[in-house]
Amino acid sequence: MGNPAIGDAFGEMIRDAYAVRTGIGPRPLAGGRLPRPVIEVIERDDGLINGAPADHYLDEPGAWQPWDRRALALCRGRVLDIGVGAGRAAIELQRRGIAVTGLDTSAGAIEVSRKRGLRDTVLNTVDEFSRASVRYDTFLLLGNNLGLLESAERAPVFLAALAGLANPGARLVAQGADPYGTRDPLHVAYHERNRERGRLGGQLRLRLRYRELATDWFDYLNCSVAELEGLVAGTAWRLKSIDERERPYYVAVMEYSSNRPTHHP
Amino acid sequence: MGNPAIGDAFGEMIRDAYAVRTGIGPRPLAGGRLPRPVIEVIERDDGLINGAPADHYLDEPGAWQPWDRRALALCRGRVLDIGVGAGRAAIELQRRGIAVTGLDTSAGAIEVSRKRGLRDTVLNTVDEFSRASVRYDTFLLLGNNLGLLESAERAPVFLAALAGLANPGARLVAQGADPYGTRDPLHVAYHERNRERGRLGGQLRLRLRYRELATDWFDYLNCSVAELEGLVAGTAWRLKSIDERERPYYVAVMEYSSNRPTHHP
Repeated sequence: MGNPAIGDAFGEMIRDAYAVRTGIGPRPLAGGRLPRPVIEVIERDDGLINGAPADHYLDEPGAWQPWDRRALALCRGRVLDIGVGAGRAAIELQRRGIAVTGLDTSAGAIEVSRKRGLRDTVLNTVDEFSRASVRYDTFLLLGNNLGLLESAERAPVFLAALAGLANPGARLVAQGADPYGTRDPLHVAYHERNRERGRLGGQLRLRLRYRELATDWFDYLNCSVAELEGLVAGTAWRLKSIDERERPYYVAVMEYSSNRPTHHP
Repeated sequence: MGNPAIGDAFGEMIRDAYAVRTGIGPRPLAGGRLPRPVIEVIERDDGLINGAPADHYLDEPGAWQPWDRRALALCRGRVLDIGVGAGRAAIELQRRGIAVTGLDTSAGAIEVSRKRGLRDTVLNTVDEFSRASVRYDTFLLLGNNLGLLESAERAPVFLAALAGLANPGARLVAQGADPYGTRDPLHVAYHERNRERGRLGGQLRLRLRYRELATDWFDYLNCSVAELEGLVAGTAWRLKSIDERERPYYVAVMEYSSNRPTHHP
């Protein structure tokens, strides 16, 4: 059987979702005459597959989840929107007169966010970009992008990269999801197998697929608030607040302190 | 990477789609608190993947495509609905007082169609069932199920199996799709590669995936009307009419004649 090609699956999906919603650009040709929603397909390394409509990446604030609206209200100063996607949040910040930069590793996502009016974009990884001399006051990770912490090994490296881009007193506003409320046996078994292998329970190994393309496999972390506290301890960041009004989803706010914490016994 | 388990992916999907639409039975647990539509994922053997909402399998006649409504009007006598799915068409025929049997190879699909009120169901392949002594006046293949012809090799075998279940003068009402109108380079290249390998251009090698399950790989034929004519020639069936009002979709009506056609030079 042929395998999908490795490529910008996310970007192609966002391009098609944008074309379907706006009528701008070539629209997806699949499906014959029948209009079909653009679907994001996510594969997990245990063989699980999940599809969900991609249209929400383009939603206007009125259609957002309430925690996203509250997260935006926490942004101040210069904002770096990490995993900007189709620009949903960054465009709204820009509309409010806030200086915002949208970062993504997907060329298609950057292209669409620019077409939609986002002025300042960066096509790069956080690690590479952290060598830039620019500094930010807020790092925004919406759409479950607290998951970019990836793992217990990766989280401090990622948080250090953000620290390298942080002005004094900068904050990190990140939306996460606690995976452990589920009773779904597939997920419960996955969490358990992860722990047996020394991984965090909600450390997902995923890839996106769209049409003929797939991303490489990557880790994406769903963690509990208690786990997050453990991951942040010993970094340049301090957990300031957790908004858990809509569990299992939460918005975490962390603050950057240039003084590394010291541990007193 | 873990592979999906082989199983009744279609049936599990139909069960979940039914639970989501009706609130009856356990609803899919994935997606946390957010309601998510049930998505059918189809993989093609070149690595292409496609997702589409599964809810249409449960649509009431008012929401159907017009060709489906016209196809139902062509049913007469005892009807065998092949690939009955969630029972959409068969339940409507039953409502109209028509004697209808729903056949499917998916246990989940049969279970849901029965829950929805379909009284006469068969969990079997057409080949196995063709040994039964029961006879039908109409064979109904909706939802692109002309695709069950599979290939040039398989089509006459499938049509012979239906002939074995056919009363004199029985008809076959089948919805197909001409694949050759597309300009999508992925599909054009697939058709070409098929022809190079001696297959019909629109002979798709597919499998369904749903959550942790996948079906085995199977052939599914999208053919033009001209190709269909070629496939039917020499069988016990004669092509009587083609309704092409909504190209590329069409409804073919074939008639069974117990006298095998003879070829005069």
